[in-house]
Amino acid sequence: MKAAILLAKQAKNEGEVPVGAIVVCDGKIVGRGRNKRNKQQIATRHAEIIAIEAACKKLKSWRLDNCQLYVTLEPCSMCIGACFNARIKQVYFGAFDDRGGACGSVLNVSEVNQLNHNLTATGGILKEECAKLLTDFFKERREKP
Amino acid sequence: MKAAILLAKQAKNEGEVPVGAIVVCDGKIVGRGRNKRNKQQIATRHAEIIAIEAACKKLKSWRLDNCQLYVTLEPCSMCIGACFNARIKQVYFGAFDDRGGACGSVLNVSEVNQLNHNLTATGGILKEECAKLLTDFFKERREKP
Repeated sequence: MKAAILLAKQAKNEGEVPVGAIVVCDGKIVGRGRNKRNKQQIATRHAEIIAIEAACKKLKSWRLDNCQLYVTLEPCSMCIGACFNARIKQVYFGAFDDRGGACGSVLNVSEVNQLNHNLTATGGILKEECAKLLTDFFKERREKP
Repeated sequence: MKAAILLAKQAKNEGEVPVGAIVVCDGKIVGRGRNKRNKQQIATRHAEIIAIEAACKKLKSWRLDNCQLYVTLEPCSMCIGACFNARIKQVYFGAFDDRGGACGSVLNVSEVNQLNHNLTATGGILKEECAKLLTDFFKERREKP
């Protein structure tokens, strides 16, 4: 999760909502992503999607059966859906998201068997640090003239 | 939907599960996508994601407020989540998907307000034609030696 937090900080430095994600396989990072929605003006450029795509490219397979995803913010329905599509089995996230979180907060997409596949999503890992990045970012943005 | 079906047929010719999608704005097609998962070996390369990304690039905005998405198969949770993230308000789909459909079949992601945004998903449009493409594709694949 520390590696994901580093990526979230990079996103913040680029003026993006600070969210970072990594994909891990056999204890090694095989994909990294940070939120790039504003810079690229593309709705799908969430940290998780970018990390999953990087991992697929690295491992040359759309199947990431033996991988885990770590992300600083609870995944939305798009991102947890991408985990199902990639057959990821374990997802670990930091802060909870009461606006769009799909792993318990707004929806329970993570708990439903899809495509004959189950995954487990575990939240609250380093949640204070992950959440503070976001609250500080939005506070600074509101205070800017 | 006819334009989306054409894209699905192109996907089939490339050995992909035949799904096609378009994004429409003010009556014009602004994004096209066809399933490219196998060829690219990337789990996120569904027709809808590719069409939404193309529309964002064309309109130079992650917000597709005034757009509609047409797709030959009921979107999964990733793809309907992408519609929420892009603030698309109307989604029209052809065949229903009892393995991964997130607009009523397996999940009801489309019905839940997310990110302070609602959308409506309408299924069953030209559904026989859309479904036949898929059933023929899987039948042919099973029959191959």
